[in-house]
Amino acid sequence: MSYTAPLKDMLFDIEHLANIGEIAKLPGFEDAGLETAQAVLEECARFNQDVIAPLNVTGDRDPSSFKGGEVTTSPGFKDAFAQYVSGGWQGLQHPADFGGQGLPKTIGAACGEMLNSANMSFALCPLLSDGAIEALLTAGSDELKAVYLERLVSGQWTGTMNLTEPQAGSDLAMVRSRAEPQPDGTYKVFGTKIFITYGEHDMAENIVHLVLARVAGAPEGVKGISLFVVPKFMVNADGSLGARNDVHCVSIEHKMGIKASPTAVLQYGDHGGAIGYLVGQENRGLEYMFIMMNSARYAVGMQGIAIAERAYQHAVAYAKDRVQSRPVDGSINASAPIIHHPDVKRMLMTMRAYTEGCRAMASVAAAAYDAAHHHPDADARKQNQAFYEFMVPLVKGYSTEMSLEVTSLGVQVHGGMGFIEETGAAQYYRDAKILTIYEGTTAIQANDLVGRKTARDGGQTAKAVAAQIEKTEAELAKSDSAAAAAVLKRLKAARLAFIDVVDFVAGQTKASPNAVFSGSVPYLMLAGNLVAGWQLARSLIVAQDQASHNVDVAFMQAKIATARFYAEHILNKVPGIRDSIVDGAESVTALALEAF
Amino acid sequence: MSYTAPLKDMLFDIEHLANIGEIAKLPGFEDAGLETAQAVLEECARFNQDVIAPLNVTGDRDPSSFKGGEVTTSPGFKDAFAQYVSGGWQGLQHPADFGGQGLPKTIGAACGEMLNSANMSFALCPLLSDGAIEALLTAGSDELKAVYLERLVSGQWTGTMNLTEPQAGSDLAMVRSRAEPQPDGTYKVFGTKIFITYGEHDMAENIVHLVLARVAGAPEGVKGISLFVVPKFMVNADGSLGARNDVHCVSIEHKMGIKASPTAVLQYGDHGGAIGYLVGQENRGLEYMFIMMNSARYAVGMQGIAIAERAYQHAVAYAKDRVQSRPVDGSINASAPIIHHPDVKRMLMTMRAYTEGCRAMASVAAAAYDAAHHHPDADARKQNQAFYEFMVPLVKGYSTEMSLEVTSLGVQVHGGMGFIEETGAAQYYRDAKILTIYEGTTAIQANDLVGRKTARDGGQTAKAVAAQIEKTEAELAKSDSAAAAAVLKRLKAARLAFIDVVDFVAGQTKASPNAVFSGSVPYLMLAGNLVAGWQLARSLIVAQDQASHNVDVAFMQAKIATARFYAEHILNKVPGIRDSIVDGAESVTALALEAF
Repeated sequence: MSYTAPLKDMLFDIEHLANIGEIAKLPGFEDAGLETAQAVLEECARFNQDVIAPLNVTGDRDPSSFKGGEVTTSPGFKDAFAQYVSGGWQGLQHPADFGGQGLPKTIGAACGEMLNSANMSFALCPLLSDGAIEALLTAGSDELKAVYLERLVSGQWTGTMNLTEPQAGSDLAMVRSRAEPQPDGTYKVFGTKIFITYGEHDMAENIVHLVLARVAGAPEGVKGISLFVVPKFMVNADGSLGARNDVHCVSIEHKMGIKASPTAVLQYGDHGGAIGYLVGQENRGLEYMFIMMNSARYAVGMQGIAIAERAYQHAVAYAKDRVQSRPVDGSINASAPIIHHPDVKRMLMTMRAYTEGCRAMASVAAAAYDAAHHHPDADARKQNQAFYEFMVPLVKGYSTEMSLEVTSLGVQVHGGMGFIEETGAAQYYRDAKILTIYEGTTAIQANDLVGRKTARDGGQTAKAVAAQIEKTEAELAKSDSAAAAAVLKRLKAARLAFIDVVDFVAGQTKASPNAVFSGSVPYLMLAGNLVAGWQLARSLIVAQDQASHNVDVAFMQAKIATARFYAEHILNKVPGIRDSIVDGAESVTALALEAF
Repeated sequence: MSYTAPLKDMLFDIEHLANIGEIAKLPGFEDAGLETAQAVLEECARFNQDVIAPLNVTGDRDPSSFKGGEVTTSPGFKDAFAQYVSGGWQGLQHPADFGGQGLPKTIGAACGEMLNSANMSFALCPLLSDGAIEALLTAGSDELKAVYLERLVSGQWTGTMNLTEPQAGSDLAMVRSRAEPQPDGTYKVFGTKIFITYGEHDMAENIVHLVLARVAGAPEGVKGISLFVVPKFMVNADGSLGARNDVHCVSIEHKMGIKASPTAVLQYGDHGGAIGYLVGQENRGLEYMFIMMNSARYAVGMQGIAIAERAYQHAVAYAKDRVQSRPVDGSINASAPIIHHPDVKRMLMTMRAYTEGCRAMASVAAAAYDAAHHHPDADARKQNQAFYEFMVPLVKGYSTEMSLEVTSLGVQVHGGMGFIEETGAAQYYRDAKILTIYEGTTAIQANDLVGRKTARDGGQTAKAVAAQIEKTEAELAKSDSAAAAAVLKRLKAARLAFIDVVDFVAGQTKASPNAVFSGSVPYLMLAGNLVAGWQLARSLIVAQDQASHNVDVAFMQAKIATARFYAEHILNKVPGIRDSIVDGAESVTALALEAF
């Protein structure tokens, strides 16, 4: 099944929702206007459609394999990665100082979506490198930057994140790996790290592991964790590769999905100690790791959107091709392609609306990130940063949760054929399930939303979002279209429900933590649902305006129809979720432990 | 991961919701009271826990395989099936005249749940035999009954359903297989049948295929389809097996789940014609097949409940064992088992509430089936039949759709470990996805609910259900407990929403079929949600009463807590679904076909 990048929808969001025109006014982004976006996205689409997408199914059928400490990636991956590197795609969003192209996230995010739609297993390697680059940019010494950054940005070397260990899971306070300071300023690192994506592979000359470990005497818990660079191969003074470092892959996991992406167990220091270099200061490792994780969390949200888009395209193609039964309205007096059946349309519209809604949300979040980093005005930076940080758990949590529903519907549209692996729809269903888990489960995103993003500022950022939504409602009210009225009705009800929940969360987190955290994931789902719906409401306003000026009328009408569908079939769930959170907290924890 | 049959919950439903005491008053069921139920369920639990459940994981890892026209089932399956047969389990619900035990469905359904919890792939073989038995009982000639029934009921031979073909899918009007009458009264059958569960295997001496085919000159469409028995081996006059018939397995499918269950492509008549025997009359095949399908649809609903139960047990065990992070309420000042975290409780409660709700719904439906077949009063039979038929699409559609959410949550509770196949949680997620597809997709169940079950009688049966729910509300209103009040609030709102939708469906199906069928699946989900919630509301009333008499107080309190959770977190979704159906119909079909 081929993949066609949804360039039109991406550029609509970039132009009208993320307002790339404004981003191009920011210092450093002068050349990053709509034209650049269009040129980059078109080139990116060609590359991903032609080179990366065909390897998605083959990678699933012929996964990466492990033998004698080495991982062989799926056939074609090594060559495709070489093309990815030579095309300069790894450096898209990274600074020109280190060989990157320094483009805004607003453009980079769309490119990330394409790569992940094309092949989520493949895309994970660059995704992890991006995180390592950001951590080094933020906290690495000039020396570390000089040795590693250029080659990570080029893609010559790849990066990994080594966080968890068998006993730790999501609780990094329990990390036990240790680092012993050496007289030359380096450290010797010992321990076992699990779930290391692309922790070992054959696509790059060297692998730069970013590793959490404790220095002897460090405080207990998360405040005693430091971050180290541990290269697979040592780097000589002239930049050439030296000896093999004492970090070894001992196995890779047998997973339900993303089978082409090797998930490694790495053993550090079994032969005397792996040589590591401290990143930043001792005991601040978790803080730095959060930089990688915030970047990665947004990127995983994009994976959700990406796989939803691919599943949608697959399902649409099947629904247009597969002939079965007469339409119930008698419009065709013979068996018709199943897309004529209302329930198939309902499934496809659900897939489409979720995907477009989350894409719009992510695009707007990316624009805020760009403004937060490049705006000349400090207040504007601060506001945009707060907005972006509020969005990250929604982009990650909501977009990935919706991708489970979308990929399930994708199988469903195929009927019995969907359950047969040859069809390809099942792969999306299997692949997607990791997205609500890695880089912080949905519950962890929800904890972040409740604690750091809502309770900490007393709901101020959340209320600022609600105030912006109210402005969109005022815009909708000016329109006399039925679609605008339908969307307005649902958007307003959802916003009011959101405010109720924000008040509940901001007011009760300290006093009744069980009650609030009983509804943390529902709160995340409610907020994500609302924000995606809000962005589609903004889309509708733009699309009505464009259509009235005869710009691309069919596309704009589809945008309007999708926004209305979202409002009437997805956004309308919000008040019910509010009730669960605010009225139903007690029943979540009422059952005695012994009764389970 | 071991399996423990939820005997207490099953017996609670059988005693208090399905009212087995009343069933034991019906002619033919005099010995089928609570004591019998308890004895049978306990024996059934032992067998499934000890013999069948251990083969679930091994069957997934070592699926059935195909070579040279023959299928070898997973290791251990053949022996386990022999034990299933010698235990007399196949005949549980079938008439004593043919060697069965003639127990009510109310008891048999619980046994079916256990078998499917233990091993869904294994359970499919008996499930299909049940369907074949029912079809022959209803429509088979005395001769066919004499030859086939006893050995199907004993399990010595197994049965299959051969409906669809590559071009037909769910649309049986497109069946092309043909049957040529022979001078001796038999037929020669030709054609290709796909998706034949246990269409070929090595667990029984003979396989009795029930096959849809057209006799030359038959009318077009579904009114020209006849049903045939085509045995794998011919049966001699003395009952011994004769020559191999001309039906051959040409391949089995490579599926996402239920891998141990062979899904065969069967080729009929490539070597002169497969000898078949007409069941009932020519051209009434679909009618007879619906008998099998209605039995199978209910059974597939039980599969949804069964796999949800197994996933729940797996997740609870992990959540009690896995230690990670401190509880947010500070109740434990150290890392605690994750079941102490509110969001994990929320996930487990969701899994539990769905499972118990659907089990209760299915148990009550089974009781109606028993009364519909055994009640001495014709009116009572009719009423019970109407209720049962209304329930079948809900049991099938809602219980299987919820099983997708439950098995997904099961993976989620396990975090990263859930995505690793060794953990076992992923298998339920992969296995469950077939349930919303086979024996009629959820959309097909919803068509049935809209057309045959709601519009045809002008919503009368649906309204009768609503009237019964109102009686439960009146019971709830008599209680002064907070739980009863909370459940009452949600139940009433849900019932009123249901009535709105029933009016919409009954009133608009003819005039606006697109609008109604745009909401057909949401209507099914709404109705299933309501009925399951209603049965849990009834459970709450019983449990409050029992607890007040000091009967098994901890169990009864858990029942109350689960009912309340369901009302506040699942049943509360109903009004939102009503809005989607009634207000949102237009937006489902608004998008132009070219815009997809």
